[in-house]
Amino acid sequence: MSPSALAAHVPSTDVGASMYELMADLFPLCRSITGAGLRDTLDRIGTIVPLELTEVPTGTPAFDWTVPKEWNVRDAWVANDRGEKVIDFRTSNLRVVNYSSPVRRRLSLDELRPHLHTLPDHPTWVPYRTSYYAETWGFCLSQHELDRLPDGEYEVVIDATLEAGSLTYGECVLPGSSAEEILVSSHVCHPSLANDNLSGVVVAAHLAGVLAETERRYTYRFLFAPGTIGAIVWLSRNEHLLDRVRAGLVLACVGDAGPVVYKRSRRGDTEVDRAAAHVLRGRGLGDEIVDFSPYGNDERQFCSPGFDLPVGAITRSGHDRSERHHTSADDLASIDPAALADTLGVCLDVLAVLEDNATLVSRNPKGEPQLGRHGLYRSFGGRADQERLESALLWVMNLADGEHTTLDVAEQADLPFPIVAEAAAALERADLVRAEARSGSTRGDGR
Amino acid sequence: MSPSALAAHVPSTDVGASMYELMADLFPLCRSITGAGLRDTLDRIGTIVPLELTEVPTGTPAFDWTVPKEWNVRDAWVANDRGEKVIDFRTSNLRVVNYSSPVRRRLSLDELRPHLHTLPDHPTWVPYRTSYYAETWGFCLSQHELDRLPDGEYEVVIDATLEAGSLTYGECVLPGSSAEEILVSSHVCHPSLANDNLSGVVVAAHLAGVLAETERRYTYRFLFAPGTIGAIVWLSRNEHLLDRVRAGLVLACVGDAGPVVYKRSRRGDTEVDRAAAHVLRGRGLGDEIVDFSPYGNDERQFCSPGFDLPVGAITRSGHDRSERHHTSADDLASIDPAALADTLGVCLDVLAVLEDNATLVSRNPKGEPQLGRHGLYRSFGGRADQERLESALLWVMNLADGEHTTLDVAEQADLPFPIVAEAAAALERADLVRAEARSGSTRGDGR
Amino acid sequence: MSPSALAAHVPSTDVGASMYELMADLFPLCRSITGAGLRDTLDRIGTIVPLELTEVPTGTPAFDWTVPKEWNVRDAWVANDRGEKVIDFRTSNLRVVNYSSPVRRRLSLDELRPHLHTLPDHPTWVPYRTSYYAETWGFCLSQHELDRLPDGEYEVVIDATLEAGSLTYGECVLPGSSAEEILVSSHVCHPSLANDNLSGVVVAAHLAGVLAETERRYTYRFLFAPGTIGAIVWLSRNEHLLDRVRAGLVLACVGDAGPVVYKRSRRGDTEVDRAAAHVLRGRGLGDEIVDFSPYGNDERQFCSPGFDLPVGAITRSGHDRSERHHTSADDLASIDPAALADTLGVCLDVLAVLEDNATLVSRNPKGEPQLGRHGLYRSFGGRADQERLESALLWVMNLADGEHTTLDVAEQADLPFPIVAEAAAALERADLVRAEARSGSTRGDGR
Repeated sequence: MSPSALAAHVPSTDVGASMYELMADLFPLCRSITGAGLRDTLDRIGTIVPLELTEVPTGTPAFDWTVPKEWNVRDAWVANDRGEKVIDFRTSNLRVVNYSSPVRRRLSLDELRPHLHTLPDHPTWVPYRTSYYAETWGFCLSQHELDRLPDGEYEVVIDATLEAGSLTYGECVLPGSSAEEILVSSHVCHPSLANDNLSGVVVAAHLAGVLAETERRYTYRFLFAPGTIGAIVWLSRNEHLLDRVRAGLVLACVGDAGPVVYKRSRRGDTEVDRAAAHVLRGRGLGDEIVDFSPYGNDERQFCSPGFDLPVGAITRSGHDRSERHHTSADDLASIDPAALADTLGVCLDVLAVLEDNATLVSRNPKGEPQLGRHGLYRSFGGRADQERLESALLWVMNLADGEHTTLDVAEQADLPFPIVAEAAAALERADLVRAEARSGSTRGDGR
Repeated sequence: MSPSALAAHVPSTDVGASMYELMADLFPLCRSITGAGLRDTLDRIGTIVPLELTEVPTGTPAFDWTVPKEWNVRDAWVANDRGEKVIDFRTSNLRVVNYSSPVRRRLSLDELRPHLHTLPDHPTWVPYRTSYYAETWGFCLSQHELDRLPDGEYEVVIDATLEAGSLTYGECVLPGSSAEEILVSSHVCHPSLANDNLSGVVVAAHLAGVLAETERRYTYRFLFAPGTIGAIVWLSRNEHLLDRVRAGLVLACVGDAGPVVYKRSRRGDTEVDRAAAHVLRGRGLGDEIVDFSPYGNDERQFCSPGFDLPVGAITRSGHDRSERHHTSADDLASIDPAALADTLGVCLDVLAVLEDNATLVSRNPKGEPQLGRHGLYRSFGGRADQERLESALLWVMNLADGEHTTLDVAEQADLPFPIVAEAAAALERADLVRAEARSGSTRGDGR
Repeated sequence: MSPSALAAHVPSTDVGASMYELMADLFPLCRSITGAGLRDTLDRIGTIVPLELTEVPTGTPAFDWTVPKEWNVRDAWVANDRGEKVIDFRTSNLRVVNYSSPVRRRLSLDELRPHLHTLPDHPTWVPYRTSYYAETWGFCLSQHELDRLPDGEYEVVIDATLEAGSLTYGECVLPGSSAEEILVSSHVCHPSLANDNLSGVVVAAHLAGVLAETERRYTYRFLFAPGTIGAIVWLSRNEHLLDRVRAGLVLACVGDAGPVVYKRSRRGDTEVDRAAAHVLRGRGLGDEIVDFSPYGNDERQFCSPGFDLPVGAITRSGHDRSERHHTSADDLASIDPAALADTLGVCLDVLAVLEDNATLVSRNPKGEPQLGRHGLYRSFGGRADQERLESALLWVMNLADGEHTTLDVAEQADLPFPIVAEAAAALERADLVRAEARSGSTRGDGR
C-alpha cells in the first residue's frame, strides 16, 4: 500500500484566491432552505464538481419534521410617502426576513415597527433573520436607519411566494475502492453571509475537486443541503447508507484567520476524531480541539443519538467572529483567502490519515529484524527527515502486533503520520510488515 | 416524573437555631456505647422523628465482636483529705473515663496519678477518654488542675455499674415508593462533645423531619447507633437488608464553619459519590472531596470489604478542629448554627439528585425534534435561567440514548442538576423523552 | 508468609568498592559479540556466581539473524615509516574497529584515511566503532592524533581472525520455590567501555550473589550475553521458557551518579513496572520513569511484539553521559562506586516487592476486626514507624477482598511496600488475612 497522494497535496495561494472568487460569485444569491436561490447555488457548485440534485416535495415527513412550503422572493421594499424605498431587498437580501409571507400594505411607522429588526448593540449592522416555521413577515435594517425613519405612512411590499414546491439538496459521490463512505457536509441555505457558510461550501467543493483527481480508498459523499431540515431530510431518505459512513466532517465558518477548531463527534474517540487531533496537534499553530456539544451546525443531526455517526466538525472563527455571526458584518471583506486554502489543507491532511491508516501486522515479530539484510539499514540517508524515518521503522516493527494502526504508531512514537506511513510502506515492500485495511464500522472506536 | 421538592427546600436560619437548641438539650447527657444516657438521647430524638429502638443483650456476638456489658454511672469524684471534690463528674461527664469500672478507694496522689489523664499541650482542656474493652478506671482533668493538686491522700469514688444489660440503637424508617433504601447514619455514643457528634445527630434528625414531609422515591433509614460496635451490631442483624441499600451518608462533625468535606465510598464512583461531587462542585465554595480511607466514622464498617456499601461521609471540620477533637474544647460554643443549616441543605441537595436521577431514553432519537411543534421553543422565556434551561433541552435530547442519566447530562453539559431535571421533565411531558427509574444495585457503578 | 529479607538488604559502600574492582579487572579485556575476550569475561564472572556457558556455532539461524563468524584479535597497529606505532591496539582495544577483518598492508595516509575514525566534536576522545555484519577494517583515534599524522607511508596490521567458531553466553539460574522466573539481563559485548556496560554486568553479578544467599520465591535467571544478537540467539533457543518469565530487568549504564531511570516494559503496566515505579517514587530522589521505546538495550528484543515479555530496564546516565557514550571517555574514572551500590539497592528493593507481593484475602471481611482481641491493638508501640504500621493494618483489612495485592494497598494507602508487607504478615499470623501467591502470567497486567 503506497501512501495516498493527499498528504503531499498542499493548496497554493492560487487555490485560496479561486475559492474566494467562487464565494464572490455566490454571495449575491438569495438562498434559503428552499427556492430558486438555493437551486442556483447548487447549479453553480455543479460547474466545479458533478452534483446530483434531489427535490423533496413540500409536505414530505422527515422524522419529527415536515418539508415546508417553498419560498421564493422576487422583490421587497418599504417606501416612504414620497415613494422612496427606505428599505430595499435589491441592496441586500438580508433586508427581508427570510421566509416572509407575501405582503402589500400601507402602514404607519408604529404599525410597521414590530416588523422591523435591528441590532441596537451594532447600530450600523443589519441582522439576518428567518421565520421558517411561523408565518410572518419582516424587514431588517440598521439601528441608525431605523432611528432616522420619520413618522408617517409607509408602503410595504414583499413580492414573494410561499407555496407547495420542494426542498433541494445536492450530492457529489466519488466512488473509492471501498464502499465505505466519508461524508463531507456543508449547509448551503444562508443568503448573503460569507463565512457562515459560503466559506464551508467552497472549501467542500474544492475538496471534492482534489479528491476527484486522486486515487481513493474510500467513497466520498459531499452533501450540500440547507441547514437542519436539509440534513434531517437527507438522513430520513438515506438511513440504509448510514452503516457505510466510516467518518465525516461538517465544514462551516472556515474562511477567517482564526485558529482551526475541530469539534469531536459525539462519540469523541472515532478514527476521524483521532486523525483530526493528530493533524492539528502536529501543526503546532494553536488550533483547538473541543468536545461535542449539541450546538453548532449539522453535526447536531448526524450525531443525534439515533444515528451517532462518526462525524466531526471543522470551523475556524476566532472570538471576534461570534458577534458578526448572522449579521451583515459577515461579508466578503471579512474573508481571508489564505485561511480558505489552509482549511482545505487541513481537510486533506485529515483525509490522508484516514486513507492510509491500516492495522499493522509484523511478519517478523520475534526480535528485531536485521534491517541491513533487507536493505533498510540507513536506507533514508540524505533526507532531512532521515532520523525520524529510521525511528519510525523501529516503532512500526515494535507495534505491528495486529492491534495497532499506523495512527496508533504515529501517536505513540510522537511522529507525523506521513513519516510513519512511509516507513510502514517501506517495511511492507521488504515483506517485514503487512498493512491490513481495517474493517469499517460506524460503531467502532477510533483505533 | 416531576422533580423532587427536596432541591427547592433551603433550610432557613431558624432551622439552624432549632438544631442548635436540640444540641444544647442533648449536650449534658452522659452518653456511652450502652446505658441510660444513650437511651435518654434516643428518646429525645424520638420526639422529633419516630424512632424504633432495638436492645441487643450483652454477650451477643456480632462478627469479630461481642456486645459488651452495659455501663451506667450515677456519680464520680476525687476528693481531697478535707472532703473537697477536686474532680467532679457533676461538672462534666468528660471527667470520668468512659466505661470506668466502679471504684471506692483512698489513694495517695502518686497512686492516683496513673489514673489521671490530661493534655499537656493544651493545659486548660480536659481530654475525653474511653476504655470499652479493657476494664480499668480513671479521671480526666486539665494539666493546670493536675499541677495544682497537692500531695496527700485522696478519696476516689466511681459510683458506676458495669453489668449485663444491652446495647441500644434507634432507627427511623420512612418508606418510599421503592423498597430501595438510602441509609443515613450518625454515631450517638459520645458524651458532652458537640461537633463530634451531636452536630451529626441533630442534622440527621432534622433531615428525617424534612423527608417525612416530602414525597419519596426511595425508602430512607436513619440509624442512630453507638460508633463502631453499634454499626457492627446493626450490620450483623440486618444483612438481609443490605442489598436494598442504594446509597448512604454518614454524618459527623458537621457543625463548624469549615468547608464541607465529602468522603467517597470505598468504591469511589457510586451514584451518591457522583451526586455529592456534583452538588459540592456546583456550590463553588471550596468544599472538598476526598477518597475513602479506613479512618473516620462508621463508613469504616459500611465500607468494609464484606459489605462494600455505597455509603459516603459528610463532615465539615476545618483544620483547627482536629486538635479540639475528643477534648472539652469541642463544646457548644464552637458550633455555628448556620453551618448546621448549611450541612442540612447540602444533604437535601444530594438526596434530591438521587431522587430525581433517571436513565433518559429519547422517543425522538433521529435528528433533533422540532421543538416549536411541541411547545418547547423558547418555552422558558422570562426566567433568569432561560438560557441554561434551553441548553439543557438540547443536551437531554442528545444524550437520551438509554445509557445516560440525568446526572450524566448535568456533568457533561456542565449544568446544575435541577436545571437538567426540569428540562427532562418538560421533555417527558412533551412525550419526547422517557425517564426510567434505574434498577438499583449496591454493586452498580455510579452511572 | 514472612517478608523477604531482600528489602532489608542495603548494599554497603564496601559492596560498591568491590563492584568497582571487578569492573577494573574486566576493563582491559577486548570483548566483542564473539571470541576470547567475551569468554574470558564470562569466566571471570563465573568466579563470583556459578555460570553455565553456551556456545552457539557460527551459521546458526536465529529468527531473522544468523550467528556470525567468531572474531579474535591478537594485535593491531598502524606504524609510520620509521616503524613507530602511531596507533596501537595494545594501548586500548578501542583503537581497532571491532570485527575488523585481518589486514597487513602498506598505505599512504590518503589511502588510510577512509579507515580512520575520529570524533571531531571531541578532539581528544577516541570513538568506539564496530562492523559486525559488513566485512571491513579500521582504526579509531582522536582528532588531535589524526591532525598530527604526517603524510607518508604507513604499515597497517590487524592480526585478527574472522572464522567459523561460536557465540558465547552465560547464564546463572537460582531456583526458587516457584518455577516462575525473573530474568535479569546485561549485555557483555563491549570492550573497554565502563558504564556501557561493565557497570550493568557487575551489578547483575552482585545481585545474583545476594540472591544466591537469600530464600527465594521465584527462580532467577541472570543472562550475560552479547547485545542484540546474543539476546536474539538466547530467545531463539529458549522460547519454551518464556511463559515462565514473570518479570525481568535489563541492566545497563548504571555506574554514574545520575538519577535512576526505569524504562517500562512494552506493556507498561506489568507487575515489575508497578514495583519499580513504587520503589523509585518512594525514594523521593528525582529518579525518572519513562515509557517503553524501541531504542536502548536488549529490552528491544525481549519486548518485541512476538514476545512482549514483562521486562523493564534500569539505567542511570545523566544528560552529560550521552556524549561520552561509545567513546574512550566512558572510562573507569567516570564511574561512581556509590552509584553501583545504589543501583544494586534499587534492584533489591524492586525484587523484594515482587517476592512479597500477594493477593490479600480477608478472613474477617464484615466490619473491622477487634484488633485488641488479636493482640494487634497498638502492637507496634515504640517503633519509629508505629503510626504507619497501624495505618497499614487498617488498609490491609479494608482492601483484602481478593482483588487487591500488597502492592495495590501500598499504592492506595501511600505507604512504603515493606510496611504494608509487614502489616499483612502480622495479620496473617493472627489469621485475619490470607496472602495468596499470585498465579503468574507473562500476559497479566500489573495487579
